Amino acid sequence: MDYNFIVLEGGDGTGKSTQARRLKAYIESVGKEVVLTREPGGTPGAEEIRSLLLTGDKDKLVPESDLLLFYAARMDHVKQLILPSLKEGKVVITDRFDLSTWAFQAEPNRDLHELFQYLHKLVTKELRSTWKRRSKGILLDVSLEVASERMDARFEELDRMENVVGGVIKQRRKAYLQKASELFPYYEIIDATPDEDTVFQSIRTALSK
Amino acid sequence: MDYNFIVLEGGDGTGKSTQARRLKAYIESVGKEVVLTREPGGTPGAEEIRSLLLTGDKDKLVPESDLLLFYAARMDHVKQLILPSLKEGKVVITDRFDLSTWAFQAEPNRDLHELFQYLHKLVTKELRSTWKRRSKGILLDVSLEVASERMDARFEELDRMENVVGGVIKQRRKAYLQKASELFPYYEIIDATPDEDTVFQSIRTALSK
Repeated sequence: MDYNFIVLEGGDGTGKSTQARRLKAYIESVGKEVVLTREPGGTPGAEEIRSLLLTGDKDKLVPESDLLLFYAARMDHVKQLILPSLKEGKVVITDRFDLSTWAFQAEPNRDLHELFQYLHKLVTKELRSTWKRRSKGILLDVSLEVASERMDARFEELDRMENVVGGVIKQRRKAYLQKASELFPYYEIIDATPDEDTVFQSIRTALSK
Repeated sequence: MDYNFIVLEGGDGTGKSTQARRLKAYIESVGKEVVLTREPGGTPGAEEIRSLLLTGDKDKLVPESDLLLFYAARMDHVKQLILPSLKEGKVVITDRFDLSTWAFQAEPNRDLHELFQYLHKLVTKELRSTWKRRSKGILLDVSLEVASERMDARFEELDRMENVVGGVIKQRRKAYLQKASELFPYYEIIDATPDEDTVFQSIRTALSK
């Protein structure tokens, strides 16, 4: 497994965070140092932006502002945590990245597509220029039914982005799938319907290619 | 005085906020409804972004993130407060706008110039398309010596952007002056060295053109 920048992506209830933790333990067990991080967030400044984004009314900010905030957080995350960690020879695993921003913020709003592409290029230029293509994206995919069941089982209050009806979750799933091969780490799609062990084996297989 | 969108700009210690309040009272005295607002901020969401921007360590966020946050706040301010107020026939006065972002965040960092221009266009397109050119920008200008004296007289703690050495204040002043005629409301430069009454008369004269 020669990847040093691994992105786990997928909608709510796809099991990303669980798999990210397992993957960290596994990579550490083969003797590498791993930084497990998440988006939005990952650095002190980006975590402040995260709180601002995930709390309060849905309409607290206009959609353009939400998108700009996600990229403000991402830029800090990339420059202050991801790139420095990669340079130190560590493996970075991030729970969510650009594909979620596409599916949640940009795709539903045609007026935002151009801004998204501009900001996406700004960040990936940073990643590509300094660090050499040892990235892998994994998109965990499940049906609306499975996602809803898993979300229900959590008993947590939903945040500003999670609290949506089924139609929105379906639309987001479609957006994830359509954009997966296009965005930066070129995501491989994995069916996340089976049990945790089976999904983890699929992720290991994807990473051993 | 036929302007309905008035921007007061200038570095710290130029007397913007005082003049903005006087201007509001004056325009109200001739029977118009006035919204006095400020940047960063002006809407609940943008005020949250303001707190994030103005508190904490200088290096809390990378410069790109600061710039994106300023524009996230501005976009919300424009779409949720400025444009709706103008549509209702009110006069909007804002204490700071795009010129300060140029002088404080973008100008000092060549890597940010392109991003600044992109975001500037994004916002001004919004302003121009919906509302028809009754804007006026005023840049209040003073020497470093006068600005420092006034800042010292305030006895307030300096925020994350204010707390800089004299060289930076000089550089910002130069940046304000160089960009004044170029940015959106096409700023007229007023010497803010004289007493408050004299400066206010100069502002009235500028607005009666």
